[in-house]
Formats: sequence, structure tokens, C-alpha cells
Amino acid sequence: MIATANNLTKQEVQGNLLSPLPVALVGAQVNNKPNYLVIGYICPFNFGKHIFFSLYNVRYTRKGIHDNMTFSVNIPSENLIKETELCGTKSGRDIDKSALFDTFYGELKTAPMISQCPINIECEVTEILDYNPNEGIIGRVVKSYADPQYLTEGKLDWRKIHPILWVTGGDYNFYKLGERIIQKKD
Amino acid sequence: MIATANNLTKQEVQGNLLSPLPVALVGAQVNNKPNYLVIGYICPFNFGKHIFFSLYNVRYTRKGIHDNMTFSVNIPSENLIKETELCGTKSGRDIDKSALFDTFYGELKTAPMISQCPINIECEVTEILDYNPNEGIIGRVVKSYADPQYLTEGKLDWRKIHPILWVTGGDYNFYKLGERIIQKKD
Repeated sequence: MIATANNLTKQEVQGNLLSPLPVALVGAQVNNKPNYLVIGYICPFNFGKHIFFSLYNVRYTRKGIHDNMTFSVNIPSENLIKETELCGTKSGRDIDKSALFDTFYGELKTAPMISQCPINIECEVTEILDYNPNEGIIGRVVKSYADPQYLTEGKLDWRKIHPILWVTGGDYNFYKLGERIIQKKD
Repeated sequence: MIATANNLTKQEVQGNLLSPLPVALVGAQVNNKPNYLVIGYICPFNFGKHIFFSLYNVRYTRKGIHDNMTFSVNIPSENLIKETELCGTKSGRDIDKSALFDTFYGELKTAPMISQCPINIECEVTEILDYNPNEGIIGRVVKSYADPQYLTEGKLDWRKIHPILWVTGGDYNFYKLGERIIQKKD
């Protein structure tokens, strides 16, 4: 225990405490077939012109990212929770994940994207950081897409998207996005 | 517009589409005084043993991080929304942000942490990536702390923490964490 000001005490806690993050399905072309992997540690970088994520280096998708130096980021809605959980628990070595979704391609021909996800981002790898047993993958955003039904006046409306938020620090559950804290901007 | 399977169409959208992320207050010792900066693009890396975040290189806090090669990550609760907004709109060049919070230190003596935040993480910089005009800062987690009142059976309980979620793709509002999608784990 560390005593701090105002009679607060702090307790050391093990494991990741930085949560929640949006669940993303990262796509890559592995052995000429689309594969999708669940990534929990991902964020924008450089004003959103790049994306960073943490990739466990035993993942099947790694080969596709290294071979093609491209990947996609797909944000699933809550209604894709079963497919998302399946992608997160089974490896592309064992099941054909391309059968779970309809795939489309944008400008890059090796970054498969999921039609059913409201948001899709195609990226070109700029750097791979080796933090064994994980890699930090950095990609430049080439193009981003959304279904028109999720836009309000041309802008994404997250109240329509229903993203899946993953709490990996503590309870490992999936949560919904809640209400706005301040109703200041529409 | 790109037509995909099942009569879905996709529209190209500009700007960051990867949201929401938890708002973090990153702390550093700048000119021997604690300073705190709002960071919106941050995630765990390497199973949570490291943290990655995107830092705009004109920020006042940058000097402290470069000088000491340490920083802290503090997760504010919703009740700190005013202080958080102030930290996000004013520079440490113009106001003394150390007066907004009570500061404590852990193992590192140059990573100031905020008593009032339920979660605090002290980090040692392992790498700085130059993606001008932003830097990717990677830190090794040295120790993590939480207030005992936010734990349930020794684990963080995010329903007690009330983190501030920031949607920067689209509407730029702050949101609450919502309900659990599946009530499977406690």
C-alpha cells in the first residue's frame, strides 16, 4: 500500500490496467485466403493517419501480415459477438475463418475486409517492432470505410454502431458503449 | 461507394475511425514539476507489459518524457471530467497543472501520478518512434496501482471505475462505459 494525499491509499495490482479498448478484427491474406484475428490492444497513432496494434507472434495471421505487409482493421457491432468470439478462440490453422464473413477488398488487394462490420480500415505496414513474444505492428491508413447507415451528416455516429468494448484489465468481459457524459456536440 | 456482398455498400470516410479509447492523463516531470497531459490514442502492448501512446511533438510534456525517459498513465473517473478537459485544453506552458491534482510517486521518482485517479501506471520509456509531427512512445510498465475501493476480490471492477471513453472518430464526445454484453464472468 502507498499512502497518498487526502487519505487515499493505492494498492499494487498485477496485469494490464488500461481498459477498455474496442474489439477489432484484423484481417490479412494468409496463404491466399482471408483470415481474421481478434485484437484487443489497438489504437490510432499520428492523428489517426497510422494504427498501432499488439500481435502475439504465434498467431496464424502474422504470416499474412509479414508476407504482404498489409492488413485491415474491422470494427464489429454487437450483433457479431458470436463470430467475434469464434475468431478469438479458434486459429486460422484449424478453421476457415473466411467462411464466417463476406470479404471485400479496397485499394490494397491483400487486405481483406469484412462486409458485415460497420467500419473497415485498410493499412500498409510501415514498421514491425519486436517485443518478443509480441510484435508491435504499425500501419499507415490507406483508406477507411463505413456503411452509410452509420453516418449522421457524413460523420460516424457511434450510438448507431454498437461497438464491443473489451475490458482486459480485471474482468475480461465485453461491454456496450454507454451514454454521452456531456451532451455538448452532435 | 464500394458494393460488397449482401447488398451492402461502403462509403469512404476521412479521419480516424478507430474508437472509442479510454481517456488517459499522462504524467511527466517537466522542469522539476509534475505535468499532466490528456492522451486519447493509447493502448497496452505485449500482454500489458508495455504501453504505447501517440504524442503530438509540440506538447509541453514531451520534454519531461525525453529528459527522464519515464512517464505515468492515470485513468480518470467521470467525476474528474472538468479537470481532464482543462488538462486537454491548456498547456503546461501556461498553467500549473500540478495544482489540479494531488501527486504521488512510486518506484520511479520522475513519473508523477495522480492520487485522485483510480488507476495509475508508472512506466520507463523503451523506445520513441518518430512519425513527425507525432511520436510513438513505448514504455515498460514498472508498477500499476489501483485504489482498493475499485477492486472486487482483488481484481479491478470497471463498473466501479466509471472511465471516460473518448470517441475521436466522428463526434468527439465523451461517453460512459455501458452494460456488459454477456454476463458470463464475474
